[in-house]
Amino acid sequence: MSKRQKSLIALLSVLLLFFGFVIMRIGVKPVNTVTASKIPAGEYDPAVWGQYYPLQYASFKMTREESPSPTGYGGSIIVQKSEMQPEILTLFKGMPFSKDYGEDRGHIYALEDLRESKRIGPASKGACITCKTPYVEQAYREMGWGYANKPLAEMMTNAKHPVSCASCHDPETMNLKITNPAFTEAQARRGIDVTKASREEMRSFVCAQCHSEYYFEPGTMRVVFPWDKGLKPADMYAYYSEKPNGFAQDWQHPDSKAPMLKAQHPDYELFATSTHGKAGVSCADCHMPYVRKDGQKYSSHWVTSPLKNIEASCSSCHTQGTVWLEERVKTIQDQTFELQHMAGQNIAKAHQAILYASNQPDVNQQELAKARELVRQAQWYWDLLSAENSMGFHNPSQALNTLGQANELAHQAIQSANLAAGIKMF
Amino acid sequence: MSKRQKSLIALLSVLLLFFGFVIMRIGVKPVNTVTASKIPAGEYDPAVWGQYYPLQYASFKMTREESPSPTGYGGSIIVQKSEMQPEILTLFKGMPFSKDYGEDRGHIYALEDLRESKRIGPASKGACITCKTPYVEQAYREMGWGYANKPLAEMMTNAKHPVSCASCHDPETMNLKITNPAFTEAQARRGIDVTKASREEMRSFVCAQCHSEYYFEPGTMRVVFPWDKGLKPADMYAYYSEKPNGFAQDWQHPDSKAPMLKAQHPDYELFATSTHGKAGVSCADCHMPYVRKDGQKYSSHWVTSPLKNIEASCSSCHTQGTVWLEERVKTIQDQTFELQHMAGQNIAKAHQAILYASNQPDVNQQELAKARELVRQAQWYWDLLSAENSMGFHNPSQALNTLGQANELAHQAIQSANLAAGIKMF
Repeated sequence: MSKRQKSLIALLSVLLLFFGFVIMRIGVKPVNTVTASKIPAGEYDPAVWGQYYPLQYASFKMTREESPSPTGYGGSIIVQKSEMQPEILTLFKGMPFSKDYGEDRGHIYALEDLRESKRIGPASKGACITCKTPYVEQAYREMGWGYANKPLAEMMTNAKHPVSCASCHDPETMNLKITNPAFTEAQARRGIDVTKASREEMRSFVCAQCHSEYYFEPGTMRVVFPWDKGLKPADMYAYYSEKPNGFAQDWQHPDSKAPMLKAQHPDYELFATSTHGKAGVSCADCHMPYVRKDGQKYSSHWVTSPLKNIEASCSSCHTQGTVWLEERVKTIQDQTFELQHMAGQNIAKAHQAILYASNQPDVNQQELAKARELVRQAQWYWDLLSAENSMGFHNPSQALNTLGQANELAHQAIQSANLAAGIKMF
Repeated sequence: MSKRQKSLIALLSVLLLFFGFVIMRIGVKPVNTVTASKIPAGEYDPAVWGQYYPLQYASFKMTREESPSPTGYGGSIIVQKSEMQPEILTLFKGMPFSKDYGEDRGHIYALEDLRESKRIGPASKGACITCKTPYVEQAYREMGWGYANKPLAEMMTNAKHPVSCASCHDPETMNLKITNPAFTEAQARRGIDVTKASREEMRSFVCAQCHSEYYFEPGTMRVVFPWDKGLKPADMYAYYSEKPNGFAQDWQHPDSKAPMLKAQHPDYELFATSTHGKAGVSCADCHMPYVRKDGQKYSSHWVTSPLKNIEASCSSCHTQGTVWLEERVKTIQDQTFELQHMAGQNIAKAHQAILYASNQPDVNQQELAKARELVRQAQWYWDLLSAENSMGFHNPSQALNTLGQANELAHQAIQSANLAAGIKMF
């Protein structure tokens, strides 16, 4: 072999080795299934989008599937939460969540489940459609926040399609985008310009625009996220304590007469401060994993519990096997439920203790007020975790700490109520 | 180029690619620094071992270093735990831990700190040396459990060296081995033959032989691990509830008169059921990471908080950087301390509430007994986490759940005490 041929062999070997390295490091990137589309702006029908993106559309339609989570907590089913936690009926007495508080079904049912919810009625406002349909984009473009104060029935007539493609994608570029103006505003107040977010950030932001805590501004019904002081439970409580925009309470509890807050699915807030969240994992990484069909790799739009497809959702990072992974999640959820159920029962008892105290002729009004503040706070911490959709898994240590605090506050409320009633205890 | 030469190029390229793969997958294995030694059986002086294993010995001597953990919890220092948690003085009233309950210093101080502890006295027994010196091997070989009931002073005369090489290694083969017979017995009762453990298992077992909960059998002072029903807090409590080997209590609380248990550093129990533990990580993986000196790679014997060398301890698996990692640990520890401090204060209050009730002339004895059982259980759950050396990090979700339960039990104890005193509360 000539010297030149030897050099050639060496060169080729090095090149092959180099490319071997590169391939191993990069891994196999998802095939880009996005093609130039003719989807017009304002097209909200997912079936039209589905003509161009059949795999994504087929997986989106799987959100019709109804089944519990394999760990026994939550799932895509209509089942009243009060079956496992009867204390819920006391905690939400006097407000719509005591009438109907079921687990959520998939995105495809968003409008149907809103329409059939026992929580809505003739007085319900357009604000309710904000997270149920991509039509919110048009409504806000045409009316600004005015749509939020229109009758819900009127808005529902225009909203033909549930949460789907146009809720998160630009039809022309297919880029991720925000359609809920409340999220854009809340992030702006925190100094975050969502139009400049990275793609990886957007893979959480499009979920966060709805899977977050919010309230309706009194008078206007504008949707507001209580994030100005931070995303932690105590931060949001501090925000509400200042009665922002005149918002003082969601309802007054008929027994304790405490001014109560109703928390709404703070999935993003809990996740954002978790180890997964801090490590830069996005919502879509677990809830919309890459899957394959006919050789094509695409992001599943069957947004559901990652436990229904552990192999695709968890195993791309955690290699211990599906049985091991499910046991880990189940352990954390059992530990969380135990404290949640415990705290919930004590908060229900606190409402009753305050009612009892308030009926005493010589009740101590100062202690009574203190008890009401304590039960409001206790239920806020409890509700954040109860309304959240992961039974603590989105952030186990924060969840358990918050529920531990909720339980302590419940006991303090009971103690104050007893003091208010003139009962001297140790 | 001939066909044969082309084939040669292809073959060489494939081979190089293959070896590139193999090297990447395997990574660089630690250099085996173990050499044939002449250390005689029964040699407990680490300085002699150090002649053959100078790097390991030099790192062992670093356990002399004294500094707090960077997160502010624990560390290798003598500081009374009651400084951060004054409630400890009430909780351990009437027993030695109220006189002296400091953070632990490194292995090299094991005998010195035992000798100077205010918890020991003329009545102290030989059982106390079990985890302080490799001499326990000789003592048990010569006397069986008889050594445990000898005066501590006598055993201390023979025990010349603190926890060191011979506590965990066979001098001839350098294999890991168990020297605490209580661990071997406890594992055997669980169906685990420690002589058949894998090397990876032994990298936790040699630590677990001391960093575990135990009690002294009444009469014999034999050391026993309460593991027969499992390693979880509730499993061990159930074990103690049956008064095993006649063991009913560590002491009676002078205020509440409750029969109390004192938990001892259950680092292994908590870790074993954690995500790290279940994933097969060993104690040594984090507390004795591989380090390099003069081109030699060896396992550090500076057994201390992994936070003092995050780069070596954590970063071999978690690549997010030392600042990120420390923040994660600090967050979990803050969340744990919050619930621990809260529960501890309420348990201290429970002891006082029971004392008050017991002084009432018409005290309800049945409720009083219930209150004592509740405060015993509450303090057990609290103490397991308080005595544990990671401020919850060894198993965050179990730690927080257990502390949440401890706090609930404390409130139940207070309520029972009030009922016993004839106070009717809501």
